[in-house]
Amino acid sequence: MTTVEKLAALRECMKREGVDAYIILTSDAHVTEYLPDYWQCRKWISGFTGSAGAMVVTESEAHLWIDGRYWISGEEELRGTTINMQKMGSDGVLPLQEWVKDNLKENAVVGVDGRTMPVELYRNYQKEFKKKKLKTRLDLDLVGEIWKDRPAFPKGKAFEHDIKFAGKTRPEKLAAVRERMVKEGADYYLVSPLDGNAWLFNYRGTDTPGMPTIYAYAFISKTEAILFADDSKLVDIKANLIKDGIIIKNYDEIFDFLKNFKDKGNLFIDTNKLCAGILDNVPENLTIFEGADIVAWLKSQKNPVEIENLKKCHARECSAVTKFIKWVKEAVKSQDIYETDVQGKLDELRKDLENYMKASFPTIAAYMENGAQMHYRPEEGKCAKLKPEGFLLVDTGGLYYDGTTDITRTFVLGNINDEMKRDFTLTLKSHIGLSMAKFLYGATGPCLDVLARKPMWDVGMDFKSGTGHGVGYALNVHESPPGIRYNPTPAGLVKLEEGMTITNEPGVYKEGKWGVRTENTILVVKEFTNTDGTFMRFDTISFCPIDLKAVDKSLLSDCEVKWLNDYHAETYKVLSPFMNDEEKAWLKEETRAI
Amino acid sequence: MTTVEKLAALRECMKREGVDAYIILTSDAHVTEYLPDYWQCRKWISGFTGSAGAMVVTESEAHLWIDGRYWISGEEELRGTTINMQKMGSDGVLPLQEWVKDNLKENAVVGVDGRTMPVELYRNYQKEFKKKKLKTRLDLDLVGEIWKDRPAFPKGKAFEHDIKFAGKTRPEKLAAVRERMVKEGADYYLVSPLDGNAWLFNYRGTDTPGMPTIYAYAFISKTEAILFADDSKLVDIKANLIKDGIIIKNYDEIFDFLKNFKDKGNLFIDTNKLCAGILDNVPENLTIFEGADIVAWLKSQKNPVEIENLKKCHARECSAVTKFIKWVKEAVKSQDIYETDVQGKLDELRKDLENYMKASFPTIAAYMENGAQMHYRPEEGKCAKLKPEGFLLVDTGGLYYDGTTDITRTFVLGNINDEMKRDFTLTLKSHIGLSMAKFLYGATGPCLDVLARKPMWDVGMDFKSGTGHGVGYALNVHESPPGIRYNPTPAGLVKLEEGMTITNEPGVYKEGKWGVRTENTILVVKEFTNTDGTFMRFDTISFCPIDLKAVDKSLLSDCEVKWLNDYHAETYKVLSPFMNDEEKAWLKEETRAI
Repeated sequence: MTTVEKLAALRECMKREGVDAYIILTSDAHVTEYLPDYWQCRKWISGFTGSAGAMVVTESEAHLWIDGRYWISGEEELRGTTINMQKMGSDGVLPLQEWVKDNLKENAVVGVDGRTMPVELYRNYQKEFKKKKLKTRLDLDLVGEIWKDRPAFPKGKAFEHDIKFAGKTRPEKLAAVRERMVKEGADYYLVSPLDGNAWLFNYRGTDTPGMPTIYAYAFISKTEAILFADDSKLVDIKANLIKDGIIIKNYDEIFDFLKNFKDKGNLFIDTNKLCAGILDNVPENLTIFEGADIVAWLKSQKNPVEIENLKKCHARECSAVTKFIKWVKEAVKSQDIYETDVQGKLDELRKDLENYMKASFPTIAAYMENGAQMHYRPEEGKCAKLKPEGFLLVDTGGLYYDGTTDITRTFVLGNINDEMKRDFTLTLKSHIGLSMAKFLYGATGPCLDVLARKPMWDVGMDFKSGTGHGVGYALNVHESPPGIRYNPTPAGLVKLEEGMTITNEPGVYKEGKWGVRTENTILVVKEFTNTDGTFMRFDTISFCPIDLKAVDKSLLSDCEVKWLNDYHAETYKVLSPFMNDEEKAWLKEETRAI
Repeated sequence: MTTVEKLAALRECMKREGVDAYIILTSDAHVTEYLPDYWQCRKWISGFTGSAGAMVVTESEAHLWIDGRYWISGEEELRGTTINMQKMGSDGVLPLQEWVKDNLKENAVVGVDGRTMPVELYRNYQKEFKKKKLKTRLDLDLVGEIWKDRPAFPKGKAFEHDIKFAGKTRPEKLAAVRERMVKEGADYYLVSPLDGNAWLFNYRGTDTPGMPTIYAYAFISKTEAILFADDSKLVDIKANLIKDGIIIKNYDEIFDFLKNFKDKGNLFIDTNKLCAGILDNVPENLTIFEGADIVAWLKSQKNPVEIENLKKCHARECSAVTKFIKWVKEAVKSQDIYETDVQGKLDELRKDLENYMKASFPTIAAYMENGAQMHYRPEEGKCAKLKPEGFLLVDTGGLYYDGTTDITRTFVLGNINDEMKRDFTLTLKSHIGLSMAKFLYGATGPCLDVLARKPMWDVGMDFKSGTGHGVGYALNVHESPPGIRYNPTPAGLVKLEEGMTITNEPGVYKEGKWGVRTENTILVVKEFTNTDGTFMRFDTISFCPIDLKAVDKSLLSDCEVKWLNDYHAETYKVLSPFMNDEEKAWLKEETRAI
């Protein structure tokens, strides 16, 4: 079926159900970011492959809201589909819910699969919809209806995440959760995020791409912890869970369990992480207490064992990326190398590294103008061949038992012009600006974002992405709640806590020309306390050369030059144990002081 | 009655009503900042004179939550009262509502005067209170009951705010409000803030100290605008209002008007600006629509006439402040001058200035250690005598028919030491950091705050106040919604719009030593639009010398020196028309390039 045919079929269903606009979100029942095929409704119907985006289909129109990362690929992929791209955040582009409000008649009906609709988003939509008295139906899965060969629900398995990696036992983690539940006044707590449950119960799994988790809910009371996950997924860890007193029920039992829950009390939920479809099952004897997900907050503060592991894991990972850089810079002179070859070479360099599982996300290898697409993915046959000139941008990450990595380097394959040098150096200034931040405890990521954006804003430039996102530990590469962005939602106003790990990834993206991004992971560290408060800083934990060939020293302040030289000295120290003599000599030169 | 006796009397009332904790807020029915005597319940019972602070009285304890501006004065004023100061934001100090939750038994009863309780605050309190199943009574005014000689309700009058000052007519403003109401999907809109109504109906008044307003509500529909204000207050403007089609009802009629409102529709309110006591009167046929107050948002974006006026008004005001600085620097050598003399001298210098009404707030004149109290107010007999050495901090403002000003200068009366110079220069760096900001449209104040705090945070220092607040126009000196602070509430995430005026007032406050603050008003200006977006900047509109005797040039970057020299050149240009030859010669020296 073509997209046009799919839309026609969907409109038939809409007509039957009396639905005037149907919304298709990129989500599953747990607000998971990287979705297994079963949940890829939006991708299936639109043909747009980006990892985010929400769609609205009416009788005569179809629109897809796409963020700045995907505007270029979105335009290509939507060509000929009759779907119009709405560039989120652009001047004159309304948010989806406002567009729906403005374009439907009073009392019209909006449909959406409630299983995939986060409660908070649903409420935001309702705020707009009620201005036009629109009605919403949550009981539909119209795309599922027309998707005849829809893939099966994931059948992955969980495995134990060893204590030497996890740092804390299940009972220790449950105690920390319950301590926080007391503070929140909660008697019960429903844990919906898949990565949250993997962290809490010290397992990892194979249900979801990118993120090593299984489909599960948890229900925590003051005395009990119930894990709702299918028996078939738990065979390898069931005994361990039971030994720790965890009660196990099947995944689908959560609905009846909630419906039939008889005790009175307060149930803690995070409306950003839970979907409307499950909230409907909560009985009246449970009073809903809303707040920021407890497990997500605890999980994001890495413990000392995790921090030590993370540093070692990053050294291993960066040694692979650095060897890749050396290889490609040399090989491009004599071999045919395509963007799609990058992932394979990186896999080869990583595969024997200690504790390596798999890539944490599909590598972005983007040559020159492809780099202007923030989340470009090279495709066999369509992608660029590298030349011994210009920029190659590589954004890659590994999932290890002792950490998750996410690093971007843009490097020079031959000649570059002055504008490229300036863009690279501006990006570096932005990167250093955030790296060097010192801040009072209580500051949130959004209040530091401008330290990265300032060098860009000062010259009338901006990058259309956040400056940084939280990074999981042996889990998903995007981890809430921390984040560095200048335009946060209220949920983004989270204090930066010791042990949080966040990316620092400013960039310059010039359509049709090139993209530059320099990304490291930074760790929130407590520095000292005095009468003015507790002061914090970031420690960079990714060490990989920043290409000096693209640095225009005249644009850097003395402070910035010092940061770069110190960073490179440390990079040599961290990486040289992984290098042979020839590699060491090359690395020495790449990390020389300027 | 002493505070101890008042507390005893209050506890008698609490016992009679079965109230376990009674909360006393600093507020009236309109969430007004500077309160007339009638509404000064918290000040009356506690003896604490600060402009903010909330109190809790239980059977055996009394606590007053005080922000950093008033910790020093609070400690003094509460001595011997049995009231414990809770330093808001300090390590280990719980927010009021958490303290109440932790210190009361389950099912206990909390009392508060609902007329003075903003809806949003009430909800925040309830979130905590329900964790312990606390009940809240809003129908009490127990302080009012024991306050036998409570002052009368204000009997001020309104007067027309001429179009040459206001820049837009009442019908133009109502049209702008209604345009926004359509966008919000609101059929009706209840305007509660006193300054909002003064702006909307182009009047000013004399009910409230500091802010030239009268007690009034407004109710706006698509076709009607009703002003609820007492006839006795409106005698001078009634004819003008009626000519513009405004319907007039008495202030107290708002309650019955709402109760008896029969039409169906959506009523727009701002729960941060409206009190729980009035919301109770809204009938079920009106659906509540919540959002950020429309009038506050429109009012904060000064129109071109207002902006032109503001610049002229600031020049006049700054000429007075500058003449004051010249006078005090000379007079201190030979005369006895006390902190309390400062207001009088400033009044004298301002009184004949065009369009001057009165001071916009009581001048803070703080010599040396008194300057460490951010909101110090000198008192006759208790205050410091100035010496020909050290720092004098003067924070002052004027209310003009064509603007409101708020400026702080810290200046040198004689010798100062190196630490003082460093603190002064750090403050200047912070001030310049924010002044020079260039930012993408869409940025909020909180995301720029770090530009001011960075020089402080870098050396492990902080100031316990926001960096800036919105400033009204011929209205209150503190104007929401804009503000520059690093720890905003969600309501603080307001985009900076062209025409907003905000203070820039970082400082250093060292208890027992001195305080430094340098404050100007900055105007949000649109700079240019390119493919990356629309870029904005701040234009400083207060021009007054920054004391070069306290500047350590070695701590300034080249950019910062350039800013200072440019600022001083402009200061001379703006102020010299107000000066005689001798003053000009002095000003030339004070504003010399360094």
